[in-house]
Amino acid sequence: MTSGPPAPNDLARRLRLIVITDRALAGSRNVADIVGAALRAGAPAVQLREKSLPPRETLRLARRLRADTEAAGSLFFVNDNVDLALAVGADGVHLGPGDLPVAAARRITPPDFLIGYSADDVAVARAAVADGANYIGCGTVFPTRTKPDAGTTIGLDGLAAVVRGAGAPVVGIGGITAQRARHAFGTGAVGCAVVSAVMAHPDPARAAEEVLRAASEAPA
Amino acid sequence: MTSGPPAPNDLARRLRLIVITDRALAGSRNVADIVGAALRAGAPAVQLREKSLPPRETLRLARRLRADTEAAGSLFFVNDNVDLALAVGADGVHLGPGDLPVAAARRITPPDFLIGYSADDVAVARAAVADGANYIGCGTVFPTRTKPDAGTTIGLDGLAAVVRGAGAPVVGIGGITAQRARHAFGTGAVGCAVVSAVMAHPDPARAAEEVLRAASEAPA
Repeated sequence: MTSGPPAPNDLARRLRLIVITDRALAGSRNVADIVGAALRAGAPAVQLREKSLPPRETLRLARRLRADTEAAGSLFFVNDNVDLALAVGADGVHLGPGDLPVAAARRITPPDFLIGYSADDVAVARAAVADGANYIGCGTVFPTRTKPDAGTTIGLDGLAAVVRGAGAPVVGIGGITAQRARHAFGTGAVGCAVVSAVMAHPDPARAAEEVLRAASEAPA
Repeated sequence: MTSGPPAPNDLARRLRLIVITDRALAGSRNVADIVGAALRAGAPAVQLREKSLPPRETLRLARRLRADTEAAGSLFFVNDNVDLALAVGADGVHLGPGDLPVAAARRITPPDFLIGYSADDVAVARAAVADGANYIGCGTVFPTRTKPDAGTTIGLDGLAAVVRGAGAPVVGIGGITAQRARHAFGTGAVGCAVVSAVMAHPDPARAAEEVLRAASEAPA
């Protein structure tokens, strides 16, 4: 972990692309290799999300991704598990309604530990921020097959509403491709979190570059 | 949490009965009320294990049990989740092969935090102790309907083998009733962990007393 929490503007910049892992989408390729390619292309953040991997393998992958993101100067988040995030020295955790509540996670983590929270609704987002969340992952923006249980698709209007009301940086998630990323950034979202756009892409580096280009072309 | 880790003999004494929660067995009764009755009967340890409760309710119950065990001077463990255990100030966590590995849990917890590990085999138990586990939960000793996925029943001989070889205090678990507790203590196990014997008993205080009596009558 780098020293101290990032300033809000710096955090927003570092969230402009969050590459989320999913070994089911990696096919015969290695998850860490795909992430490595995205990091070399400039991905500023990675989130480990492997719900069906045995704990020891998850820990091993988490350590590898922590080392690789650290070497690249990128942020590393762990999905759901605060304990795993702490155990590998991740920069933060991404929580949702099925996890330890944000306020409880805040109390057991260092002051510079980042907490993201999933919300598709302004009230939920504001409550999470009041409880100590540093950013909001907002979606499902577009239909996606990655997370068929992800609930209602909220579209760009739904994302824009949360961006306006959350009181913290908002990252769009759900069905975001390089093309659609442009529209997501157009709502004022600071970033896009992608799963299949990078993990299932034959050229993950190029996929990451395209999302980053969309970010750089977004109105300030 | 009381100050400092308990000395080994004191820990063994405090593990002689671990009451494990299961609201499915509590019927229309309140889990905290049943635990309260067991605590008043002298139960020296309680473990929260509610896998299907929503996180916020789990957190609420965990806080209540932490407060009640603290008032009674009893130990409080949380099953599986190191983060929840830390969040509520539990004395420890009970881990198994599906959880964060013991060594990783040890690194993110205070020095006086207790870690229990489930093992039905000497080699696994010794490895967990080498990684920092303070005690072993060993079973399934007797057939049980509480945990139909618990694997092979190891019997009193299996328990005795782990007691001899673990290198740490061993608590028997699985199908232990007040009658059977006597036999479990006879193997040299320092304690018994019970689910249905207390949670499903019409008089949980009496059930706890009976196991404690078996402990007090065991050969030293």
